[in-house]
Amino acid sequence: MTRTRVAPEHVDAGALRTVVDGRWAHVREETRAQLAANDDGLRGAGDLTTEEYRARITGALKILTSSGRPHTGFDPTVGGSGDVGGVVTAFSMLAYGDLSLLVKAGVQWGLFGGAVQVLGTERHHERYLRRIIDGELLGCFAMTEAGHGSDVQHLHTTATYDPAAQEFVVDTPYPQARKSYIGNAARDGRMAVVFAQLITRGTRHGVHAFLVPLRDTDGNPEPGVTIADDGRKAGLNGVDNGRLSFSGVRIPRTHLLNRFADVAADGSYSSSIENETARFFTMLGTLVRGRISVAGGAGGAAQKALALAVRFGERRRQFSHPGTGEEIAVLDYLAHQRKLLPALATTYALHFTQDDLVKRMHDIQAPGAGPVGAREQRVLEQSAAGIKAIATWHATHTIQTCREACGGAGYLEENLLPALKADTDVFTTFEGDNTVLLQLLAKELLSDYGRTIRQGNPLRIAPLLGGQLAGVLAERTGVASLARRLPLRGFDLTDPARRRALLQVRRTDTLATAIRHLAPALRGGADEFAVFNSAQDLLLDAARAHVDALVEQSFADALQRIADPGVRGLLERVHDLHVLTTIDRERAWYLETGRLTAAESRRIRPLVNELCAELRPHARTLVDAFGVPESRLACPMLDDEAWAPGPSAPAAPVTEQVEAG
Amino acid sequence: MTRTRVAPEHVDAGALRTVVDGRWAHVREETRAQLAANDDGLRGAGDLTTEEYRARITGALKILTSSGRPHTGFDPTVGGSGDVGGVVTAFSMLAYGDLSLLVKAGVQWGLFGGAVQVLGTERHHERYLRRIIDGELLGCFAMTEAGHGSDVQHLHTTATYDPAAQEFVVDTPYPQARKSYIGNAARDGRMAVVFAQLITRGTRHGVHAFLVPLRDTDGNPEPGVTIADDGRKAGLNGVDNGRLSFSGVRIPRTHLLNRFADVAADGSYSSSIENETARFFTMLGTLVRGRISVAGGAGGAAQKALALAVRFGERRRQFSHPGTGEEIAVLDYLAHQRKLLPALATTYALHFTQDDLVKRMHDIQAPGAGPVGAREQRVLEQSAAGIKAIATWHATHTIQTCREACGGAGYLEENLLPALKADTDVFTTFEGDNTVLLQLLAKELLSDYGRTIRQGNPLRIAPLLGGQLAGVLAERTGVASLARRLPLRGFDLTDPARRRALLQVRRTDTLATAIRHLAPALRGGADEFAVFNSAQDLLLDAARAHVDALVEQSFADALQRIADPGVRGLLERVHDLHVLTTIDRERAWYLETGRLTAAESRRIRPLVNELCAELRPHARTLVDAFGVPESRLACPMLDDEAWAPGPSAPAAPVTEQVEAG
Repeated sequence: MTRTRVAPEHVDAGALRTVVDGRWAHVREETRAQLAANDDGLRGAGDLTTEEYRARITGALKILTSSGRPHTGFDPTVGGSGDVGGVVTAFSMLAYGDLSLLVKAGVQWGLFGGAVQVLGTERHHERYLRRIIDGELLGCFAMTEAGHGSDVQHLHTTATYDPAAQEFVVDTPYPQARKSYIGNAARDGRMAVVFAQLITRGTRHGVHAFLVPLRDTDGNPEPGVTIADDGRKAGLNGVDNGRLSFSGVRIPRTHLLNRFADVAADGSYSSSIENETARFFTMLGTLVRGRISVAGGAGGAAQKALALAVRFGERRRQFSHPGTGEEIAVLDYLAHQRKLLPALATTYALHFTQDDLVKRMHDIQAPGAGPVGAREQRVLEQSAAGIKAIATWHATHTIQTCREACGGAGYLEENLLPALKADTDVFTTFEGDNTVLLQLLAKELLSDYGRTIRQGNPLRIAPLLGGQLAGVLAERTGVASLARRLPLRGFDLTDPARRRALLQVRRTDTLATAIRHLAPALRGGADEFAVFNSAQDLLLDAARAHVDALVEQSFADALQRIADPGVRGLLERVHDLHVLTTIDRERAWYLETGRLTAAESRRIRPLVNELCAELRPHARTLVDAFGVPESRLACPMLDDEAWAPGPSAPAAPVTEQVEAG
Repeated sequence: MTRTRVAPEHVDAGALRTVVDGRWAHVREETRAQLAANDDGLRGAGDLTTEEYRARITGALKILTSSGRPHTGFDPTVGGSGDVGGVVTAFSMLAYGDLSLLVKAGVQWGLFGGAVQVLGTERHHERYLRRIIDGELLGCFAMTEAGHGSDVQHLHTTATYDPAAQEFVVDTPYPQARKSYIGNAARDGRMAVVFAQLITRGTRHGVHAFLVPLRDTDGNPEPGVTIADDGRKAGLNGVDNGRLSFSGVRIPRTHLLNRFADVAADGSYSSSIENETARFFTMLGTLVRGRISVAGGAGGAAQKALALAVRFGERRRQFSHPGTGEEIAVLDYLAHQRKLLPALATTYALHFTQDDLVKRMHDIQAPGAGPVGAREQRVLEQSAAGIKAIATWHATHTIQTCREACGGAGYLEENLLPALKADTDVFTTFEGDNTVLLQLLAKELLSDYGRTIRQGNPLRIAPLLGGQLAGVLAERTGVASLARRLPLRGFDLTDPARRRALLQVRRTDTLATAIRHLAPALRGGADEFAVFNSAQDLLLDAARAHVDALVEQSFADALQRIADPGVRGLLERVHDLHVLTTIDRERAWYLETGRLTAAESRRIRPLVNELCAELRPHARTLVDAFGVPESRLACPMLDDEAWAPGPSAPAAPVTEQVEAG
């Protein structure tokens, strides 16, 4: 590549940390200090029983309460400081510690408290929110049912209004309608926000949220409430997930969280949003914070795993150099670099993307932000869905890779990777199954396209456009003018602007392909399910390509903001590696569509290898910049004493094995 | 595709089972019966402490002993029946139950007992082997050291001969030389086969195996032996892994396992194999059974995971059909099919490959097999290394996919997937790190090439050949004549013979590419490490392509043996899906090398989708054919009662969400 290499001594670690920490640097520093101070008793579950582990995490939740951090995310009207971005940032960093605490905190303040704040009104805020924030009232977010996880719009729990008593009667009509996987349910929850079909005067008005007391002050279930324990899970066993069933449970009319809809004493229903589906999605939309938080937590976990694996890879030596006889650090092997460094580059890319997402959310949700435009809110939700999916899959994959890269040591609980893997595994499922989220994003992109061409349903108009479709999409997204300036074939892959164009053209082309596939098939009474189903892989491609372009954009924007030349130079190489890795993953598509020639495509892997070699000396600097507290990384496999040098090895060169056997 | 679809009613489940069960069908049936009979207490660790869980597994080991199965794998001379293939087959099926038991059994009989049998001589067999087989003498296989896992040839434990006492003195020279991750060490092992550098008369003769007593009859460590516990692991917590250090531990001279080398009373060293490296690899080669067993266990675990996920995918319904209003089984979604069915197809392919591997091992190792040719042994070792790597990665990936495909239910321990994932995770590491194994395989392939052209080192001859290299390789492997008959471009991807040619040509071309990269670079004093390291990804590619071709060959051979037309028709489609999935994964390479045109490449995905749709009605039949005992699949998420139908849903069509938001 035709640019100056960045020498390690030219990278200012402090300046790099500043760039990584971004807008909520002060929150990050505070959270690091808290994590470092409260390490006691929070390392590994070992032989704790489920009950003991849960008790420990409930205790840790109290320590977190006393830090004052959870308060800051709530509105000033209820005693908070409205620092929405700060609280999500701090939450993500809990991933450096015990992830059961992260999830328990997310359930209590993010989901339960968050739902009361955004779906409730003053009467709920005054009566409950302060106690929720202070951790005095522990609660649940009871949305998912055993039979309806992804399709929450059609869940089956009912809340039927009884005007005589001015009460709602909450029921679980059959076993599969029980609330399932509900955090805080099995042990601690006193109350739940229950999502149920609201029925009044014989009419069903769709899903609404209700406050339902679960246990009395002695901890016994309220009449009609049945609570079961989900038992042991693959991970997160410090969180008490459970199942809730309701049989004729009566709650006051005022327990409807009535920000968007209400039922009067006489049973008449009113809502500011007439369309039932639109109302449902508005309610869900206010809960976007959960998805963004999960993406952030996944990022934190991936960062910690990489910090562990890179440090181990620098220490662990295997096979000796044929020239010097010295044993070689495993991170000096190309195959090892190719496992860890592209994952590290993408972790950086997702970190900046997450920061952008948090900023956008903060600017929309923080007090005094003003009214939110429908499009602005929609784009935020789309980004959150897509980034949640990509970030959690990335974390699952990266942590798995880091475990393998640490060999047998990575399999021992004492070396921290097993808990990271087991605890984050469900992140790809909760707050929306990743595949379903990408599919929803793709359908949103179709709708956006329909809106843009002002013809309503894009599937009806698309056939008219024929081959111009991709062109229209390209114009709309600005890719067309880019393509005119930068011919998309025959260019130099080392040019960042041209590489970006490749990601952007894939974003528009994959969407155009999906529309082209769907539109003609849907003409004339086709089976809608069959048609959409047959395009499911194309839709997922389009969503993925959309997120890839978003992520690249965030990283590129972040580079623009960096003043320090050493840091900028280094992160430009990290950006190069991330983008080339993305193009490499999709290079069959680029070849199939003629966007890359065979010669260009063959050039990608050597470029990735060169970047790996170039970044190798900076690997430690890059993982250290995340600032995972040292006490949260300390483990036997990284213990200096254990690495005391042995006598020189009875070494044969590594290449000797070629001849052997 | 231009062939008749196989209707579900035309597939005879019994005939399919017969095909799947293969040569050791009787062993499979017996093992199934044993697994079904001994389910008590072997389901999930729940809140057991590590000690309780270990005790349970030690107890289960005794039950296994009393089944008589472990005996059958040993030589008739020591009371066994020499059914090498049968015992490995039965071992693999333990993966349907608790994998801690599988690993504990593998350590006791496969590694410890196996090493005594194949590295020891009559005196060891008579004195110890019967007690090992009967589970009276529990022991360890102490090869890996904290500092040397992959590079065992250079491990640092020493065994120094003292002629005055006629004893070896075993020492751990420094902390990183301690034996690590040793199964049976922390709790049960009384003796270990310890691999150490043999030193006599001041000369080091390389790694040899010694019998070292670890604990006395009361269970206390022998003098000079220090035993530490590895503690909790990500999984397999029923196995007592630990660390062993030795300080001046004295053992009789006769405790050297002396099949390949011996030390006389006066300290003189003798061996039937002069070259130290060759001797080392001969000793390792006899232990090939371990890798084959691990590959088999991984296969069993993947089969069970798929059986769980496919059954769940047929029951779990989500979103409703826009036409009928009925909710749709998630396995009817294309995206879900694309997750599970290609993985199922490859699981079938690996099952037949494993069966071939076991047969080849059996025919070489079973009593009366006659002398083993060096090439035959080498090819078995190569296959075992490559297939172990690919099969264990496949299992890790497949079980992860199955967990995600079962959503939240898949995360609950009661539904069996968490233990499958956690317990098999280390399979990619033990018995040889997968990346290292593939690299060794690649280097073996280079050596084979060198032997074939009878010029010694292929790296010295390759430059002379220039562009003819791939041609020579192709001739040697028979691909060239295939290519003449079947032009490699412009053909129909639905033709199985032509698809096979694609896998085979990739096998030769990737190796040729690696040789071409290595050979010129190694001329004239280049840094050998740097050159090999820069080709590491090419070498891994070549190894992967080699295994891909092996796997396809085994599956194709198995198809030839099927008489039942319905079963054959169905498995031909499974084979199609496996091969197309493999080509799909590598289609960028085929495009880059001009082996596929863009149009052909674009056709692959629709073909995969068609095959998924075609196999969907057979998915249950295919997973049932593995014959995982029902009691080992029974779990709440598959409980019929829990799936009692609810009232008809307040359903909106699935496509409505396109418009929403």
